Amino acid sequence: MLEELKKRVCRANLLLVEYGLVLFTWGNVSALDPSGELAVIKPSGVPYDGMKPEDMVVVTLDGRVVEGELAPSSDTPTHLELYRAFGMGGIVHTHSKWATIWAQAGKCVPALGTTHADHFYGDIPVTRLMTDDEITSAYEKETGTVIIETFRERGIDPCEVPAVLVQNHGPFAWGDTPEKAVENAAVLEYVSEMAYYSLDINEGARMGQTLLDKHYLRKHGKGAYYGQK
Amino acid sequence: MLEELKKRVCRANLLLVEYGLVLFTWGNVSALDPSGELAVIKPSGVPYDGMKPEDMVVVTLDGRVVEGELAPSSDTPTHLELYRAFGMGGIVHTHSKWATIWAQAGKCVPALGTTHADHFYGDIPVTRLMTDDEITSAYEKETGTVIIETFRERGIDPCEVPAVLVQNHGPFAWGDTPEKAVENAAVLEYVSEMAYYSLDINEGARMGQTLLDKHYLRKHGKGAYYGQK
Amino acid sequence: MLEELKKRVCRANLLLVEYGLVLFTWGNVSALDPSGELAVIKPSGVPYDGMKPEDMVVVTLDGRVVEGELAPSSDTPTHLELYRAFGMGGIVHTHSKWATIWAQAGKCVPALGTTHADHFYGDIPVTRLMTDDEITSAYEKETGTVIIETFRERGIDPCEVPAVLVQNHGPFAWGDTPEKAVENAAVLEYVSEMAYYSLDINEGARMGQTLLDKHYLRKHGKGAYYGQK
Amino acid sequence: MLEELKKRVCRANLLLVEYGLVLFTWGNVSALDPSGELAVIKPSGVPYDGMKPEDMVVVTLDGRVVEGELAPSSDTPTHLELYRAFGMGGIVHTHSKWATIWAQAGKCVPALGTTHADHFYGDIPVTRLMTDDEITSAYEKETGTVIIETFRERGIDPCEVPAVLVQNHGPFAWGDTPEKAVENAAVLEYVSEMAYYSLDINEGARMGQTLLDKHYLRKHGKGAYYGQK
Repeated sequence: MLEELKKRVCRANLLLVEYGLVLFTWGNVSALDPSGELAVIKPSGVPYDGMKPEDMVVVTLDGRVVEGELAPSSDTPTHLELYRAFGMGGIVHTHSKWATIWAQAGKCVPALGTTHADHFYGDIPVTRLMTDDEITSAYEKETGTVIIETFRERGIDPCEVPAVLVQNHGPFAWGDTPEKAVENAAVLEYVSEMAYYSLDINEGARMGQTLLDKHYLRKHGKGAYYGQK
Repeated sequence: MLEELKKRVCRANLLLVEYGLVLFTWGNVSALDPSGELAVIKPSGVPYDGMKPEDMVVVTLDGRVVEGELAPSSDTPTHLELYRAFGMGGIVHTHSKWATIWAQAGKCVPALGTTHADHFYGDIPVTRLMTDDEITSAYEKETGTVIIETFRERGIDPCEVPAVLVQNHGPFAWGDTPEKAVENAAVLEYVSEMAYYSLDINEGARMGQTLLDKHYLRKHGKGAYYGQK
Repeated sequence: MLEELKKRVCRANLLLVEYGLVLFTWGNVSALDPSGELAVIKPSGVPYDGMKPEDMVVVTLDGRVVEGELAPSSDTPTHLELYRAFGMGGIVHTHSKWATIWAQAGKCVPALGTTHADHFYGDIPVTRLMTDDEITSAYEKETGTVIIETFRERGIDPCEVPAVLVQNHGPFAWGDTPEKAVENAAVLEYVSEMAYYSLDINEGARMGQTLLDKHYLRKHGKGAYYGQK
Repeated sequence: MLEELKKRVCRANLLLVEYGLVLFTWGNVSALDPSGELAVIKPSGVPYDGMKPEDMVVVTLDGRVVEGELAPSSDTPTHLELYRAFGMGGIVHTHSKWATIWAQAGKCVPALGTTHADHFYGDIPVTRLMTDDEITSAYEKETGTVIIETFRERGIDPCEVPAVLVQNHGPFAWGDTPEKAVENAAVLEYVSEMAYYSLDINEGARMGQTLLDKHYLRKHGKGAYYGQK
C-alpha cells in the first residue's frame, strides 16, 4: 500500500544526505497520506546507503504499524503528534549542525534577512526545557506535545514558520509535502549558520517587519509573484 | 536572438553552483548585450540542474520580455536599474553565505589584504536600510536605486569596487562580462569570510593605502603586469 | 594470521579518510584479537591511498611485532596500554580538527545535547599535562598511562564514555569493534564542533541529567529500544 | 631542459587545488634545480585546469627566463630571493584561507599542539609591515627581503620553521622538495585554523617546550623514529 508515497519518503530521506544534513543514520522524514489516517516513515537506525522504498514503514496516527518489516523510527510518536495537531504533509527531523547548535544553546534563530524571510515568517522558536516527568514517561510523544505548546502559546502559525528547535536536541521542520519539509530543513540550517555570524559581527542586527512581510508574501499566499506560474 | 549570450549567461549561472555560491534556485546572473539595449537573464525560481540556454529570458532595459517562455528572475528590475546607471557587462546576485552574513550585519567588508586588493579597490559598501515606501512600492527596482545611491553618495567608482551588499539581503557583484561578474562574486565570498576572522583575531587589522594601490593597480589599468600579455 | 581482522582494521583506517578525520597519514586504527593477546595496527607514516590489509602489523600486547613487513604506528604503545587496562575491541587516534581544538585548549567537551548523549554518557575528559619525565622517557606508553589515570581518578567508565582528549595533542576513541571506534571518533568530532558554537551563543548552555540518561540508555544497555532488534 | 623537474612542479601546483589551498589561479609552486642555478616556476595567471609541465617557466636565480613561452608568476622575484638566501628545494605561495586570515590579522600562529610540532619547530612568524618604499619599488623582491629579515632578526632557522606569513598578504611555505613544500603549506593551513579556535576557547592555551621538542625531534633530525626506515 502507499507505494508511491513510500518512494517519495525514501527519496526525501536520501535528500538529507545530499544536502549534508545527516551523519550516519541520524534524521528521518515522514509523510502523511492524503486520507490523513496513515503516515509513512523511515525505519529506525537503518543506514541511508542502500535504503529502499519497501523499507519504509506505514503506521496509523496512533502508532500502530500496518505495513513494513522493520521497526519505525524511534521518533515516530513525535511525528504522529505533530500530524494530529497540525496536519502538515511531511515532517523532517535531523541533528543538522547549525540548527542543533542553536537548539543546544536554547535560543531562537532570529530573522535577520531575506533568505530567512523567503521561507519563514519570523524567528524559529525553541521549545522550553522538558520536565523530568515528560522525559521519563512517553518521551518521544511528549517531544511532540512541547512543540505544539510552543506554537499555540506564542501564537505562531506552523504553516508560516514550518520549523522548530527542540531544546538540547535538534530541529524538526515540515511542509505541505515531504520534499518541501526537507527543503525547509535545509534552509533552516543555512539561515541558522548565517544568523550566528551576523549577530557576532553586530549583536544589534535585526530585520524590519516591512521587509519580512515583503519577502515572505512575495513567495507565499495569493499575492505571490516569485517563480513560474 | 542573442543565442551566444544566452549560452554564456546559462553557463555563468551554473558556475554559481560550481563555486558553492547558491543553494536551490537562489541567485541569478544576467548580461548586457553589446548594443546596450537588451539584457539576458535567468528565469525565476527554476532549478540549476538541467537549466538550458533557451530557458534564458531576453528583456529590454525597461523590463519588457522580448524572448523566452519563462518569467524572468524576480530580481530583474534590480539588474536593469544597474545596467542603466553603470552599463557593466554582467551582473550576479546571490545569497552566498559570508557576503550575506555581512549584509545581515549591516556592515561594509573592509579591505584587509592583497586578496581583496587584487579585485576590489577598497571596502565593499553596504546599502542603507530601505524605507517602508521603497519596500512596499517597486521593491526590486528600488533595490537598484539604493545601490546606485550608495556608490554616488560615497564617491565610489563601480568599476573599481564591482560589488555591494544590500542590507538584510545579500550581495550583488558585476564585471565587464558575466563570467567576470561571477568571479567577483566568488572573490567577495572568500574575502568576506577571511575579513570576519582576521578582525576577530585583531580588531585593529587594516591594510595600508600603498599596498592597496600596489595590488589593485598591478592587475588593473594601463600599468598592469599580472598574468599573460 | 588474523587475515580477517587485518581486512577490518585496514577498512576502518580508510573510513577515517571517508569521514574527513585525517589529513595525510595522521591517524591510526587498531583492533584487539578476541584472544586478547594480539593487536592489529596500521603501519607508521604510510599513506592511506593504496593501503592494503597485508600492510597491517600484528603485535603482542607488550609490543613485539609478530607479523608484518612494516614498522607499526609510532602510537602503538599508547594503544597497547589502553588494551591492557580497558580491553576494548578497537581504538582510533586522529588529529581531527574539532576534537584537537578542544585538546589544544585543554578543556573537556561538555555534553550539551542528545547527539552527544546518544553516544557518550557525559563530558569527554581531557588529560592533565604530561610531566617532562613522562614526555622524555617512554612518551607513547605514558600517553596511555595518563589516559587511564584520567578515567580512574575521575571515576569515569571507559565503556560509557569511549573517548578522551590528550591535552595539546588530540583525541583517542574506542569501542567494542574497530568500526564502532571509528564511529565514536566521528561523533566526537561532530559534537566537539557543535559544543564550541553552542557555548559561544550561550555560555550557560548545559543539558539536564534526566535527558542525558534517557538518550544514552535508549541506545545502550538492556533497556535499549533504538534501531532494529 | 629540466623536464623531470617541470613535471614535478606542475604536479605540485595541481596538489594545491587537491588540498583546497587555492581559488582560481591564486598560488604558485617552484623548485630549485639541484645545480642551485635554475628555478622552475608556474606561469602567471594561468588556470590550474589543463596546466601542463611544458607551461612551466625556467628562470635563472637573477630572474632571466631561459625557457618557456609564458611569463613566469609575478611572485617569481620573491621565490628567487628566498632561494638565494635559504637554498631550499621548493617554495609555495598561496592565499589559503586560514593562513591568510592570520596574515591579515598581523599575528604569528602559535604552536599549540603536536600537529604543529610534528612539522614546525615553533610559532609561524609574521613579517613586519613593508614600507612605502619597499612596496612602490621592487615590491615582489622586497617581499622576499622582508621574509629573510624576519628569520635572521628573530634567529629562526628556516629549515626548522619552513613557513612564514607575509603581513596583509598570505603565506609562503617551503621544504627540501616542491612536494614537501606543498605538504607544509597544507599543514600550516590546518594548524592555523585549529589555533584560532583553541585560543578562542582558552586564550591562555600554549604547549610546553618539552612536548614541542619531543614531537619535532621524533620526526626530524638524526634521532627521528616516526615512519618507515
